[in-house]
Amino acid sequence: MISFEPVRGMKDYFGEEAEKIEFILSSFRDIVENSGYSEIMTPILEDFKLFSLKGGEELRNTMYVFKDKADREVALRPEFTPSVVRAFLNNFQHYPKPLRLYYMGTVYRYDEPQFGRYREFRQAGIEMLGENTLNSDVEVLHVLYLFYKKLNLIKSIKIKLNNIAIYRLLFKYLNIPDDTQEHILHLIDKNQILEAMKIISNFGSKFTNIFQELLNKRQWSEKELNDFYSDYMEKIGINGLDLEFQRLIDVFNIFSSININISLDLSFVRGLAYYSGIIFEVTTDTLPFSIAGGGRYDNLVELYGGPNTPAIGFAIGVERTLEALNSIEQKMKKNKKKIVVIPLDKSVIAYSMDIIETIRSNNMICVLNAKDIQLSKLIPFYAEQNYNIAIIIGKKEKENNNVTIRYLDKKTQESVPKEQIIERLRQII
Amino acid sequence: MISFEPVRGMKDYFGEEAEKIEFILSSFRDIVENSGYSEIMTPILEDFKLFSLKGGEELRNTMYVFKDKADREVALRPEFTPSVVRAFLNNFQHYPKPLRLYYMGTVYRYDEPQFGRYREFRQAGIEMLGENTLNSDVEVLHVLYLFYKKLNLIKSIKIKLNNIAIYRLLFKYLNIPDDTQEHILHLIDKNQILEAMKIISNFGSKFTNIFQELLNKRQWSEKELNDFYSDYMEKIGINGLDLEFQRLIDVFNIFSSININISLDLSFVRGLAYYSGIIFEVTTDTLPFSIAGGGRYDNLVELYGGPNTPAIGFAIGVERTLEALNSIEQKMKKNKKKIVVIPLDKSVIAYSMDIIETIRSNNMICVLNAKDIQLSKLIPFYAEQNYNIAIIIGKKEKENNNVTIRYLDKKTQESVPKEQIIERLRQII
Repeated sequence: MISFEPVRGMKDYFGEEAEKIEFILSSFRDIVENSGYSEIMTPILEDFKLFSLKGGEELRNTMYVFKDKADREVALRPEFTPSVVRAFLNNFQHYPKPLRLYYMGTVYRYDEPQFGRYREFRQAGIEMLGENTLNSDVEVLHVLYLFYKKLNLIKSIKIKLNNIAIYRLLFKYLNIPDDTQEHILHLIDKNQILEAMKIISNFGSKFTNIFQELLNKRQWSEKELNDFYSDYMEKIGINGLDLEFQRLIDVFNIFSSININISLDLSFVRGLAYYSGIIFEVTTDTLPFSIAGGGRYDNLVELYGGPNTPAIGFAIGVERTLEALNSIEQKMKKNKKKIVVIPLDKSVIAYSMDIIETIRSNNMICVLNAKDIQLSKLIPFYAEQNYNIAIIIGKKEKENNNVTIRYLDKKTQESVPKEQIIERLRQII
Repeated sequence: MISFEPVRGMKDYFGEEAEKIEFILSSFRDIVENSGYSEIMTPILEDFKLFSLKGGEELRNTMYVFKDKADREVALRPEFTPSVVRAFLNNFQHYPKPLRLYYMGTVYRYDEPQFGRYREFRQAGIEMLGENTLNSDVEVLHVLYLFYKKLNLIKSIKIKLNNIAIYRLLFKYLNIPDDTQEHILHLIDKNQILEAMKIISNFGSKFTNIFQELLNKRQWSEKELNDFYSDYMEKIGINGLDLEFQRLIDVFNIFSSININISLDLSFVRGLAYYSGIIFEVTTDTLPFSIAGGGRYDNLVELYGGPNTPAIGFAIGVERTLEALNSIEQKMKKNKKKIVVIPLDKSVIAYSMDIIETIRSNNMICVLNAKDIQLSKLIPFYAEQNYNIAIIIGKKEKENNNVTIRYLDKKTQESVPKEQIIERLRQII
């Protein structure tokens, strides 16, 4: 005996939920293709090292890892970016930059299942490889904006913005090793600020006030950030810090000028260890988790053994975006009529198939009756199943090259010549 | 250092190949949705038992199996049907029958990689659950036919047809146990006919001639099959054998009457152990493997612990269908023009984003320039990258509420008011 349930933490999707997922994915595809991105499909199974190298603590501990028959240590991908970077190195290194790629598919994390957190879930995202400019940051965030606008969710979402490079430059100045930096950012991500401050203070108390301010203030105006920079940070004279502040302010200003709820939050970091610049996250008022996020990762390509290649991207959580859609009670009804063709004996099946083909190719839903019960029972069965029309075909209809159309809602019927079926269906559907 | 290659036997798809895969999948989706099938999405990871119970020898030996952190023995799905049946039992048992479901996604087999055989590959398919009638067989095969017709491959493919119930009934009559039946069918599938005959003969020599004829003759006419039945098999008096011969002949006749290359081949069996009735396989002249296949599996639902529920379905091999598409040199060019918008400084980026949004929402491909080099170098760069149009926006354009459109092929440019951009682009694109 087999369990009828999926494996713990995983889920079957069907009916309206599956339709909504498909709606999210096809909307995403439309937006990113018109934005010049091309699809890349990478395997779900990859070398474990690909993800463990710079995925961050949390990711590493929640991966599905196993050895295959040839003793390779492989993992089910917990996210797409490392795979896209690997494929970039394998195939696109010498393409003109920037390269614009998109992906969609399932990812895997062995986590405690809860609302909005499954062990298999879907992501769709884009990566732009090869440029680190204001415009590249803007374009990627703009695509994210257009996607949620297309879903009619733009009024429901908030975008949080930060530039992790500010932390990186301060950490570097304090000589904090990479591993420790990663751990500190992990703690900040988990909101364990005191713990994070304790570790930072081991490397000197020089920036205690600065970190206090950065980590505890959740929302900044442009002016506050400018003042903070010139009051506390300018004089330290860290090379490049001014540019990173400026980049953050520029991106914030540009998106503030369009109709979207965006906030500067310098206390916000993301769980993935490879981020190096602008980072962002999409949340809603009603859901206790982010529904999309991304950022700049300028060092990952080099870390994997490739040439210096700055990059930025984002991923949307498909199921979480579905929850956001559900919370605004989006209407998404398919109003297609349903037609059943009922051949009365097997000598007219081929004739019926021909008619079915024509109906389907005119983009109407049409099935061949598969039930072996008498017509007087079939009609109420299909009426109850919300079919709108039954097309009944017997020997007589085939001889006369016509069909009998029965209107299941009106309980009337008429004879229609074969070549007029589509015209007639269009009139009444 | 990370390997840039995917894991052995797996493959990245991008560019034209990825576009063709997407074309195959969206064509499939169109056909099956208009045929009344609804999508079901099941997890890639399932209980190993789900697939091992009735998958057949070959499948069992080539599965990716491992234990998760809670010591569950799980497998990457090698096919979809068992998952769909499990989800049916979990969710749809009490829905009106027949139930029409479709799926698409990746499956996994640890096999020796070779042309047309990867360790990760894609399948798309349908399942109709709840009826065993001539019409249900016909509808499923008709959907397969319409799919290959839509791909323009209908002249390139051949369909082989058999009814495995004929073997099942003969085996049952000889009291051959289920396991041995499965092994014999596996041998026949691998074309080890002598070996199969040897095992059959252990259960008596009564049907030696019949099996010889069935296994060695590759193509039957309707008349030959009728004669064979009445000469050799009718008199044995096996209950139901006449109906199974009749079903095979009916399906064959109906599809012979439409314009498709279909053949009766009673020597053909399929690798999956759960088939119980009509089975079929799609091949081409140019490829050394089948590109799609399916059949009736009337006992699988019950075997899993559910109520008696006959069913039939098929799966297409997506990459193999792609190979078939490649072999006929199908043209599938996307002829969309490419547009780049170039803001000349950051004060005009928001204005540019607005224009980009309008262009994309009119279904044209448009990117924001992400390169930080001077205009005189940008223009030849985008011309070389086959962009058709550059829209240049400086402070002056923003003030005047217009843009400069530069035609990269003609090397001319003009000033166009903002609200006339789309109209102008439509004229020239």
